[in-house]
Amino acid sequence: MIKVVFKSHNKEAFCSKGDTLLDIARKADIFIDAPCNGNVSCGKCKVKLLKGKVDTEKTRHISDEEWEQGYILACATKVIEDIEIEVPSKLSSSMHGMKIEGSDKKKDQQIFDRAKQIANEHDLKFEVNIKKKYIEIEEPNLDDNISDIDRLQRYVRNNLGFDHIDFGLSLLRKMPKIFREKNFKVTITYVEKKNKITILDIESGNTQGRLYGAAIDIGTTSVVVCIVDLQTNEVIDKASSGNAQIKYGADVINRIIYSSKGNGLETLNKAIIEETINQLLSSLYVKNNILKNNVVSIVVAGNTTMSSLFLGVFSDFLRQEPYIPPFLKSPNLMAQDLGLNTNESAYVYLAPSVASYVGGDITAGVLSAGIWATDENILFIDLGTNGEIVFGNKDYMMSCACSAGPAFEGGGISCGMRASAGAIEKVKIDKDTLDPTLQIIGECAPVGICGSGIIDLICQMITKGVVDRRGKMHRDLKNRRVRFNEHEIGEYVLAFKEEYNLENDIVVNEVDIDNFIRAKGAIYSGASTLIESLGMDFSVIDKVYIAGGIGNNLDIENSIIIGLLPDIDREKFVYIGNSSLVGAYLTLISKDAKFKLEEIGNQITYVELSVYPTYMDEFISACFLPHTNIEQFPTTKNLIGE
Amino acid sequence: MIKVVFKSHNKEAFCSKGDTLLDIARKADIFIDAPCNGNVSCGKCKVKLLKGKVDTEKTRHISDEEWEQGYILACATKVIEDIEIEVPSKLSSSMHGMKIEGSDKKKDQQIFDRAKQIANEHDLKFEVNIKKKYIEIEEPNLDDNISDIDRLQRYVRNNLGFDHIDFGLSLLRKMPKIFREKNFKVTITYVEKKNKITILDIESGNTQGRLYGAAIDIGTTSVVVCIVDLQTNEVIDKASSGNAQIKYGADVINRIIYSSKGNGLETLNKAIIEETINQLLSSLYVKNNILKNNVVSIVVAGNTTMSSLFLGVFSDFLRQEPYIPPFLKSPNLMAQDLGLNTNESAYVYLAPSVASYVGGDITAGVLSAGIWATDENILFIDLGTNGEIVFGNKDYMMSCACSAGPAFEGGGISCGMRASAGAIEKVKIDKDTLDPTLQIIGECAPVGICGSGIIDLICQMITKGVVDRRGKMHRDLKNRRVRFNEHEIGEYVLAFKEEYNLENDIVVNEVDIDNFIRAKGAIYSGASTLIESLGMDFSVIDKVYIAGGIGNNLDIENSIIIGLLPDIDREKFVYIGNSSLVGAYLTLISKDAKFKLEEIGNQITYVELSVYPTYMDEFISACFLPHTNIEQFPTTKNLIGE
Repeated sequence: MIKVVFKSHNKEAFCSKGDTLLDIARKADIFIDAPCNGNVSCGKCKVKLLKGKVDTEKTRHISDEEWEQGYILACATKVIEDIEIEVPSKLSSSMHGMKIEGSDKKKDQQIFDRAKQIANEHDLKFEVNIKKKYIEIEEPNLDDNISDIDRLQRYVRNNLGFDHIDFGLSLLRKMPKIFREKNFKVTITYVEKKNKITILDIESGNTQGRLYGAAIDIGTTSVVVCIVDLQTNEVIDKASSGNAQIKYGADVINRIIYSSKGNGLETLNKAIIEETINQLLSSLYVKNNILKNNVVSIVVAGNTTMSSLFLGVFSDFLRQEPYIPPFLKSPNLMAQDLGLNTNESAYVYLAPSVASYVGGDITAGVLSAGIWATDENILFIDLGTNGEIVFGNKDYMMSCACSAGPAFEGGGISCGMRASAGAIEKVKIDKDTLDPTLQIIGECAPVGICGSGIIDLICQMITKGVVDRRGKMHRDLKNRRVRFNEHEIGEYVLAFKEEYNLENDIVVNEVDIDNFIRAKGAIYSGASTLIESLGMDFSVIDKVYIAGGIGNNLDIENSIIIGLLPDIDREKFVYIGNSSLVGAYLTLISKDAKFKLEEIGNQITYVELSVYPTYMDEFISACFLPHTNIEQFPTTKNLIGE
Repeated sequence: MIKVVFKSHNKEAFCSKGDTLLDIARKADIFIDAPCNGNVSCGKCKVKLLKGKVDTEKTRHISDEEWEQGYILACATKVIEDIEIEVPSKLSSSMHGMKIEGSDKKKDQQIFDRAKQIANEHDLKFEVNIKKKYIEIEEPNLDDNISDIDRLQRYVRNNLGFDHIDFGLSLLRKMPKIFREKNFKVTITYVEKKNKITILDIESGNTQGRLYGAAIDIGTTSVVVCIVDLQTNEVIDKASSGNAQIKYGADVINRIIYSSKGNGLETLNKAIIEETINQLLSSLYVKNNILKNNVVSIVVAGNTTMSSLFLGVFSDFLRQEPYIPPFLKSPNLMAQDLGLNTNESAYVYLAPSVASYVGGDITAGVLSAGIWATDENILFIDLGTNGEIVFGNKDYMMSCACSAGPAFEGGGISCGMRASAGAIEKVKIDKDTLDPTLQIIGECAPVGICGSGIIDLICQMITKGVVDRRGKMHRDLKNRRVRFNEHEIGEYVLAFKEEYNLENDIVVNEVDIDNFIRAKGAIYSGASTLIESLGMDFSVIDKVYIAGGIGNNLDIENSIIIGLLPDIDREKFVYIGNSSLVGAYLTLISKDAKFKLEEIGNQITYVELSVYPTYMDEFISACFLPHTNIEQFPTTKNLIGE
């Protein structure tokens, strides 16, 4: 047995000779960000060897200086003797860590209100099937000694007018004691359907006021949970965190690969349910003084892969030709089937997917954005780890998916992070000194940069002459912010460690920029191809809805300048936030909305870009700043004077 | 920590000072029979102290000789230092142990055939809802890339004519891999209901021939499981064993008490499901080469308490006035809800109960006995741990329960045992020598005596002048078979240890006889009270059906002589064996029978004997051999010459 001491975490782990350091850390529950899932390709799992020898290699991700200091890649290191390791704090905590964050209630309220308004305008009633009722049942005696269940059934038949009640084992198991706690005065939670009701729960005494649901958005990178009062339709509170599956791969493909090996599927299922959703639920319960038993309805929206992993369903065939998803619509489920931390009989509904790479997050987004109800031509872009695009109106809806990668959520960028405290969300570069002005979430020292910050940064770099249209630093620049490493890779220093008392400088390098350019190129070319496939172009667009967890300060102008969004009238752009979550919320509070969501799932047509003849050319052309054909971006052309 | 070594089992257990020896043994999974559940009242948990000191007392159950040898009651012993214990082998293995036994297939066949004949005569069709079908689905390709579930749904709609399919999470989880094992050639197991089917299972290739169900009789003392071929309706095999709950109490009242403390309910639920039924199922699977996944339907019959403990439902209110059962009919259940060792989606159906002490074993028994279909007046007596009686015909059925105790199944008798190998099942006593001639199940050395043996024995003792009408040994008898201990309790030696090379003599003493007389008195007085409550008497009876696990050789004549059964025409008596199991079997193979069983549950009227004015007097009068009023038993009167 070999001992590995994680000094930074004050933890010890034991392993066998030859075990990989990344695996050892995972088993010891120490988070090391590894978006490429141990393929030695992303270079993010950099840790510092304090003591002992290891079997490792110096990869292109490690500079000479770092190598001197003992930095190694956890995924490329085999342990051969007792060692001591330090995991840089930014890796373990801020990147995609499990820090649970609350929400900006006022901003949330606006978004939810807007969705409710759309629903209202189109006659989606806010009515749910699940109800509570306080009842006082006659106590039994020797002359009236029918069984507990028959007694409940008799009451329901005589007083509520239902012929038949359904119930499950969990109700039966708790009923005898609950009945006798307050002399057969109980509150039942039930779902009515024609002349039949299904009783989900029974509580002692009168608990009529307490009936909640959870709307959950499972993103590949981030997960958000909303607790909703099912009687008033109000959002009680919201919490978000990273998806704990991240340690097994940053994007859906790496997750699927991980899930198909050994007990990987089980591990990923546990990561999303126990380590992510249940943690978020618990934090909301404690903060808002809610009993988990009173949470009786759950709506979940996620992409096709996330939906599959959430249910623990094997999805490897999603990534093998002919790319078959196991399901698009899930069967009826209860919380106990999945181990969710709610009432065990809570109903779980998954937003339906459209295809292998257009999932329930998109149908839910389309629902909340109201595309299904409008005459206007809407271009809907979800900037997530995958970029999904929908174009259409109430008469037709076309969709496609582009594997953008996690760049918009701060992934795939060496100093990238989620849009949470410490994230640089806005950047301005002085045209003379090239010094940046940073706006940081939470008004603290910067920790990394989130999606909206990267957009700003790249826009500033191209317009202030730091990079050329390929995204490469100008080799002749003489400025302390711009430097080149021994591999001749250029980098721009956003924050010197001395400025903020950091462990390391915060930099964005040419590899990061390249990653980002490919991501934005995928989105732009996806949108243009989709519209072109209908024989149209961007001029027909009435509105562009931008959704996703990119941050609250997405700068539309900058996004256009770098070639992420088409150079059309700025008035047409609307940032609609996490539309998937809002769609899940609507589904939770309105059975009409749920019905509409099912319809949307059937109505959206999927276009497979990879087989579309001109897509590859379009994509390659879009992998420039802003585009090979700068005529498509008059604004940028004007600014950079080409 | 104190160490207890169980020499007989080669096992060590650790405990705290003051722990009770019976509890320590239970935790160490060492079976010690304790019908009274540790109340120091039955005296059956006698073990031998080999080494060390304990805090214990000499109770009336321990003779001076035994005390000398180190015998103590495990329930009355607190451990204070390291000790060594020997558990007599008969206690741990043969009494109510978990030995799984096969069945006499020929005899079984007759019983099942008779039930099928009754069903046939009354138009109960042998048809089940669950079917299998081998299907060959078109493989997906890039142009036909709908999801796996949609593909199955499309096939079912186009080829089998069902609009809608239902399925659960377990199906979804296994489908993607199963589909691709043999190129989308699969066998589905499904239940059809109008134009909808529910798919329970999917298997690779053609497995159409293999579709099984399990009929289970949960007795308080014994449990029997039958595996049935659902396509041919044949009983494949049967296995039985003691109910592993026995270590927590011999009768339903002691079980309920145990279940209401700590995690007692969980322990009892685990004992019946994991330690009894799952073991029996496994043994049947191995012996008959059956895959558990092919067992898709389960019918269970048990008394109200057993049904409740089987579902893990709190039942303490059953024994508290006004004696309310939690349920009579169970909700729809799946095997996975209960952890049964079958296909996890297997349907589980519980025979409905009538009242707190007339359960699903009786409704199932009434079904298989055909009382619901006949003009004749039938007296149905189930001689189990509880004695239940039904009287009636197709127009009406009345029922009552008498707490007979486990005597008919060999319980509550010092050398009693279940009707399994080693059990004395028939006894004849020579009128001159008083030596017995024994018939032993399995033709081996005797281990104990089962219910039918005790009936024979007591009949022989009263007619050969060993005991008087109170069941006491004649004090003036001079015979080596009859002896009295230091408490002046008489006993009759059925087998001297020297005769068969046993550890101890096999004896039946006056306490045993007293227990048995109370049991038979409860049955007889129950039957007479029930009929009398209708203004009738035994003369109206056309048939008496005797059911229960009393053994295969119940001697009707002897049962009448001792006053267990009424002294009427012998032609009217029919021993129908385990009618509860046979009813479960019918329910398994016929949806008509299941419907009929539900009707029976509603039709049977329950008479509460304890509040019936004359019952107590009747019972006390019946606690003689054969009865206080011997005029009711002319046969006995004639034989013993009173």
